[in-house]
Order: sequence, then C-alpha cells, then structure tokens
Amino acid sequence: MGKNKSGIEFDKTEQTNEWYTDVINKANLIEYTDVSGCYILKPRAWYIWEQIQAYMDKKIKKKGVKNAAFPLFIPEHLLTKEKEHVEGFAPEVAWVTHGGNSKLAERLAIRPTSETVMYAAYSKWVRSHNDLPLKLNQWCNVVRWEFKHPQPFLRTREFYWQEGHTVFATKEEAVLETKDILIDVYKKMYEEVLAIPVLFGFKSEKEKFAGAVHTMSVEPFLPIGKAIQGGTTHYLGQNFAKAFNIQFTDTDQKKKFVHQNSWGLSTRSIGAMVMMHSDSHGLVLPPKVAEHKVIIVPIIRKDNKEKVLKFAENIKKELATFNPFLDDRENYSVGWKFNEAELYGYPIRIEIGEQEVDAKKVTVVRRDILQKENIPAKNLKEKVSKMLETMHKDMYNKAKKFLDDSIVVEEKDVKKIAKYVKEGKIVKTIFDREKDTDEIIKAQTGGKTIIIPFDEVPKKGAKCPFTGNEAKAVVYIAKSL
Amino acid sequence: MGKNKSGIEFDKTEQTNEWYTDVINKANLIEYTDVSGCYILKPRAWYIWEQIQAYMDKKIKKKGVKNAAFPLFIPEHLLTKEKEHVEGFAPEVAWVTHGGNSKLAERLAIRPTSETVMYAAYSKWVRSHNDLPLKLNQWCNVVRWEFKHPQPFLRTREFYWQEGHTVFATKEEAVLETKDILIDVYKKMYEEVLAIPVLFGFKSEKEKFAGAVHTMSVEPFLPIGKAIQGGTTHYLGQNFAKAFNIQFTDTDQKKKFVHQNSWGLSTRSIGAMVMMHSDSHGLVLPPKVAEHKVIIVPIIRKDNKEKVLKFAENIKKELATFNPFLDDRENYSVGWKFNEAELYGYPIRIEIGEQEVDAKKVTVVRRDILQKENIPAKNLKEKVSKMLETMHKDMYNKAKKFLDDSIVVEEKDVKKIAKYVKEGKIVKTIFDREKDTDEIIKAQTGGKTIIIPFDEVPKKGAKCPFTGNEAKAVVYIAKSL
Repeated sequence: MGKNKSGIEFDKTEQTNEWYTDVINKANLIEYTDVSGCYILKPRAWYIWEQIQAYMDKKIKKKGVKNAAFPLFIPEHLLTKEKEHVEGFAPEVAWVTHGGNSKLAERLAIRPTSETVMYAAYSKWVRSHNDLPLKLNQWCNVVRWEFKHPQPFLRTREFYWQEGHTVFATKEEAVLETKDILIDVYKKMYEEVLAIPVLFGFKSEKEKFAGAVHTMSVEPFLPIGKAIQGGTTHYLGQNFAKAFNIQFTDTDQKKKFVHQNSWGLSTRSIGAMVMMHSDSHGLVLPPKVAEHKVIIVPIIRKDNKEKVLKFAENIKKELATFNPFLDDRENYSVGWKFNEAELYGYPIRIEIGEQEVDAKKVTVVRRDILQKENIPAKNLKEKVSKMLETMHKDMYNKAKKFLDDSIVVEEKDVKKIAKYVKEGKIVKTIFDREKDTDEIIKAQTGGKTIIIPFDEVPKKGAKCPFTGNEAKAVVYIAKSL
Repeated sequence: MGKNKSGIEFDKTEQTNEWYTDVINKANLIEYTDVSGCYILKPRAWYIWEQIQAYMDKKIKKKGVKNAAFPLFIPEHLLTKEKEHVEGFAPEVAWVTHGGNSKLAERLAIRPTSETVMYAAYSKWVRSHNDLPLKLNQWCNVVRWEFKHPQPFLRTREFYWQEGHTVFATKEEAVLETKDILIDVYKKMYEEVLAIPVLFGFKSEKEKFAGAVHTMSVEPFLPIGKAIQGGTTHYLGQNFAKAFNIQFTDTDQKKKFVHQNSWGLSTRSIGAMVMMHSDSHGLVLPPKVAEHKVIIVPIIRKDNKEKVLKFAENIKKELATFNPFLDDRENYSVGWKFNEAELYGYPIRIEIGEQEVDAKKVTVVRRDILQKENIPAKNLKEKVSKMLETMHKDMYNKAKKFLDDSIVVEEKDVKKIAKYVKEGKIVKTIFDREKDTDEIIKAQTGGKTIIIPFDEVPKKGAKCPFTGNEAKAVVYIAKSL
C-alpha cells in the first residue's frame, strides 16, 4: 500500500529540504537506491518527463534537428582533448576500468556530457559547406559524480536530458540558434508545460560552460527566494572545432573551422516544478503533465452505493479525454482519498455524493487553490476543460507575480544589495562583467550572478558597485539553488 | 558529402559480414567509435528505433504497464544476489571503480539488464495483494562487455532496448503474460512494423535467461539460413523473489513470494531487419520505418528545369503525408541520386522528366523489387498509399515463403539433420529437452535449438534422435546468428 499518507510535515520556507523530500516521496515520484545520488524515477515522475520530452522533441525536430544516439563511453584521450572542458568535468567523472575480469587498456569515462565523443565523429562527417548546418540531438542519461549533498531531480549523479549539438559555417548562425533554442524551446517549455516564468539571458564568465565562448540560461525563480538554472545553451565558438579538427571547405574553396553550439535541458526541470508550485498539502501538478487530470471520488454509504457509483461512472465516461481516475477503491476512507489526491497532485478533484446525484451537480476542487465549488453537472466536459486552462494560467500568473515582485533595482549600494539578496529578492544591478567579479559579488552579497539580460546596458559612465570599474553589463543577482 | 556512393560490393550469401557492414555504412546508419563494440546510431538508424519504440510503447501501455527509470549503476552486492543470474552476466560486466579521483568503496556494475536493481526496490514496494500486479517498463541503454567479434546492431557492447519487469500473485498470470507479450507485442512488431515473420516458442534449458524458469523468444529466420533471437520473455518464477525477498500478504492473510517476469526487445531488431530485406543495391526499408517514404528525383536539362521542378513540387505537395524528399540538389547526377536512393532504402522512388510532365505521368520504382512503372499522375496519393501497403505485404510474404520453404521435418536421422542444417534449413525434429542435449545437438549437427513450439508434442513412444531417451518436445534446429 506504499507510503504513509499523512500530509506534508515540514514548512516550505523554513525547512525547504525536508519539505521537498517529503513532497516527492509522498507524491510517489522517487525511490532511493543503494547508490547515493542515484534515484529511481517512478512512473509518476517519468510520466512528467515524457510530457516534457514530447513537447520539446516536436519543437526541436521542426527546427531541422535530428535525433541520434552516441555511446555512453568516452575514452580518456577524447575527454581530455579540449583543455577547459576537461578541467571542468574530469573531477566528477565516473570511470570504467574493467570489462568482466579484464582491465581495460584505456579508462572509459561515463559521459558527463557528450561534446567530446560527438565531435570526434563530427570531424569525420564535416567536409564541405554542403554538410552544414549539422544539427543533432540525443535524449539520454549522463553521469556527474558530484560530491555535494545530492537531491532527487535537483542534484543527482545520474540524470536524464536532451543534448543538442549543432555545427554552423558562421558565428552569426550559431549565436542566433543559442538564443532561438533558449527562448523558443526552453523558455516556452517552462511557460507552456510547467506553468513557470523564467529569467533568461547570458551567464557570467565565471558561470559559463567549460569550453564555451558564452552560455545562456533560463532561470525559474523559486518561492523560497532562490533562482535555479533550468536549461542552458552554449556557443562553443571554434574551441572544440580546433581541438577536434572540424573543418569545412567553404564556397570560396578555403578551409575553415566550424562554429558550434551545444544545449541541454534535464530532469532537473521536474525538481524546479515541484519547488515552484507544490505546497503544504503535497504536489501541485500543472495540468499539462498530469496523467490523470481529474480524480473522481464517490462518497458512498451502503444504501446508496449503486446510485452514486453509476453517476460517477457516467461522469468518468464524459470526461474520458482527461483520463480521469475513478477512485472506487474499497477499504479506504473518503478523507484518506482526499489526502492522497492532494499529495499526488491531481489537478481537479470531483466529489460525488448522494446530494450531488439528486441535484445533478458535482463538487469540484482545483488542486492549486483547494477551493470547493458545487456546480451543475451539465456540460461538465467543457467546464473541466476551461478549469484546467484557467488553472494553468493562474499557476503561471502567481509565479510571474512573485517573480516580478521579487525584483528590486539597486545599482550602487552593495550593503543594500546584500540585504535584498538575504531577504530572498532578485537584485537588478550592474557590474564590470569580469570573471573574478563573481567571487567578489558572492563574498560581499551572499548571492550569485543569475543572468545578464539581452539588450540592456548600463548608463554611460556608470561604475560597477563591486569593483569601481566601468560597468559593462546589467546583471541579476540572487541566491541560487 | 559523406560516404562513397558506389553500390554494395559484397555478396549477401557468400560474404555476409562484409555485405552487412557495407550496407549499413552506405545507408548512413552507423558510425564507428574508438571503443570497440560501441557505435553511433546516426539519425537514419535512430529514426527506425523511434518507430519501433512508438509502436511497442503504445501497446505496452495499453496492457497497464507503466514506464519508469531505474539507475544505470548496480552495486556489486545486488548484482550477485541471484546465483544463476550473476554467473550468466558477471563475465561481461563493465565495472565503474572510480568517481573523479576517488576510489569507490564498492564497485558499480553498468546494468547488463536491470533485474537486480529493480527487484531491490520491488521488495520495498510490494506488501499486499493490493499492490499486484506491478508492471513496469523502461527504455534504456545497457552494456554487456562481450569479447566476441562485435557487429553493429547485432552484437554490441552498449545497446538500446526496453525491459519490462512485472510481478504477479500467481504463476498462471505470470506465464500468461510471457506469452501475451511475446505474441501480441514482439511477434506483431516484427510482422507489422518490420515486415518480418518469426518462429516463436520456448528456448531450451541451455539457452534460457540466467535466472529464469523458462524463456520464450521470437526468431526471425534470415535469408542467409540463420535464425536470430529477436526478443525474449522470461518467467522468473520465484527465483528472484526469494533472492530479493519480495513477498506479499495474500487475501488469505498468508505471506507468499511473488511470481515475476522480465522481457526485452532491443536495437538488435534493426540488424535483423537489415539482414532480412536488404540486397545487393543496399538497404531495403519496410515502409513503416522509413522517414521519407518517397523520394522524388527530377530529371532536368537546362531548358526544362523550371517546368519539371514545378511539376515535381506539386507532386511533393500532394504526397506530403508520406514526407517525400525532393532531391533537387545540384551538382549530383541523376544516376548518382538513384544509386544513393537505393543505398538509403527509400521505399518508393518517383522519377520525373519532361516526358512525364507532358504526359501527366510519373515513373515509380518500388525499392524492394526495383521495377519501373510509368503511371498517370492522377490520384497519385491514393496509388502511393496502396503501393506502400502492397510493398509491406510483399516483403512480409517473401520472407514468410522463405521461412516456410526452409522448414524440413526429420525426426530420426541425425546425419540428415546435420546435412539440412549445413544447407541452411530449419529442421523440425524432436528431443528429450534435457539441458545437456543442446551440446550434443551442436556437436552432431552444427546447429542450435532455436525454439520449442507451443502446443506440439512428439508422438507417444518416440525417441530423441540425439540421445535415444524418450522424446519430450518438438524442437526447431538451425544455424543461429
């Protein structure tokens, strides 16, 4: 019968980690294993990922990106080809050293990301401008043997993602794509599937991907006052092209190095979704990722069982398009079922008792607001459809209002910036965009640079409040998960 | 511009391995990597797998099986819990020994299959009869560090598959499912998606899965006179339940061990498809797995370019539902394009020259039979749709006829059996169904036991031709890939 079905026992703001663990466990999303940082994604979690995959896969394919599959194993000599890349990833690589009882001649890294194994192949495939652009994606598992405290979805040693790896003749095309994927795929996925608004823009020099020229990211801002990196696109310039010798003969017959991107979004997004919407009653699922968008709970006595169940079954049929779960299990009390429905996050709960049957009404409860409404059963399909739409919008708008309300502008006073960061605000400020300044910001404010927005520049002559240097960029600073 | 586009340079029957390698390379399905036995599945290959996945995933889900994701890593102490299982798999396990620079306290196996990591969780989840049946599946990569000569799709160290793992209260339910998945999912997938008929039935004691009570398989029979194991279902009995302590309280309040199944079908099926249908011109793709079911090749001179292309583009629009590829690339000769189309396996090639435009006709060529037909362009969509259907049926029927014609019955004379096996036949015979008899059969005939059909028994009093013991089962013997 699974987990204890009492409510969530921790406060979201005060005891965030315990609250999070309690929510995902009682929602039946996760199981722990004997390997720290490796979790089982139970069907309720994997279903969410399947919805994210379906949405993104369609969009990615429309952009002419094709799916492929590259090996899990990267020989050490390949992983180490691009200097900055290996420095970034080697400390957290899981190494295979033996096959059966035989020691391997060369250690194999389990891919932490697939640049190196893919670009070794790209160097064979790209010959002429006719071969460009080359745009591939794969949905796969990757492993990063982190030593920080692991958390399901948010920081795991194995996780699932898509990684796109594209090759262009020119810098312009490549840079354009990093922005297009960021805004048209990642940002829209968060908004349209997970009902989450995001900040988006460049990462700082310090925070960019190991081996990239620039990194862009989308960043949900969580109700606990922390941003979370939700998906990234990297313009790799010609760094990997030179390390892996990926050259093409251009229309002018000259040999040139290609320009490359990589971009990824992972199951971390599920963790962001939980953190964003869930509450003291359990999981709140955006309707788009709920397998059963409706749960129907009949309220039965011995003497009206047949009558109520018949009505409930008719409602189930009418609402078939929402894949309703009719919770007619015996030996469970109605209170227990309500509680479970809240822990599991069914978007809409429909309660049907004898009163409802007689009045041809149903009682509906939206999971996000938990308000009961008694409405006529007539045209219920249409009503539920509208409720689900409204629910998605309301969830998004609530998160958007919180995001907007959290932003404060302070371009001069570092103490004030630190105070705002501590309070869980996002501080919109300016800085010199130097790599070392991130460390100063962290030391002086306790926050991190989250994103550098596109198309905004500091006023002429403005000074970086952290270094006194000329300010080169607008930047958002906040705590980060 | 990729691969050399000359035709296939080897004979399918005489030089099968070289022919196979040539076909998959020139069809752009595979790229080799620095790790022996690990291959890149290029988009043309991954697309085929996506079609197989889509077909099976839908069918599996309809049976109430849910998708989940279990970790890649299996700690050594779990892998070794079921004795027969570990003996079967340990010799070919890839071991992770280090995370970053730290040696791990316990070695981690990369899953060769996921029984052990899944059932450790199942033992936590299953408590009462209410928790049964428990039916999960995952689509994932697995690794078996084989030391035999690797071949793309057919024998690879990393491969992709689905693995279903189901738990039942009774033996009857479990056994019923091994047969249902075998026939309703695996057999039908081969027939309806890949146009391949299969033999199906039990594997012998010797050939069954390590840890199973019985194994069933579907076995395509290849034109080279060899069977290939194409998908297997295993009744695990209570072997793993006892090793992992998976017990439930039944309705009679007694604690009982569960009955379990596992079943898998892999990217090996793509290799079987290539072996089955392809020819001396290259890949022949069953229409269901072809991304572009039609290629349109305009035959153009300078003075009719506009006219021919306009007509071709209209045809392309009309046939949009088949995702046609209009090969209007310049700098490639028509002959080169035809050759490539044959190597790549587009099911239908449509040739359009000025003659065709003037006569409002098109020339169509079906890839499997390579016969040209000049037909009116009117109602082309309907005609192409029918051609694709017929093509699938013809491909299936050709393979079915070959399979049927290959079966010979010989229940007594071992020398004759050996002769038939050598000739590439399937010998339907009888045997005593003892574990050791497989070795005798191999030694005396050069063949392997392929399947033991359901619902057929030897005549009363018949003797096993290999041992002289009482014959207990009908069996098909043949060479096996």
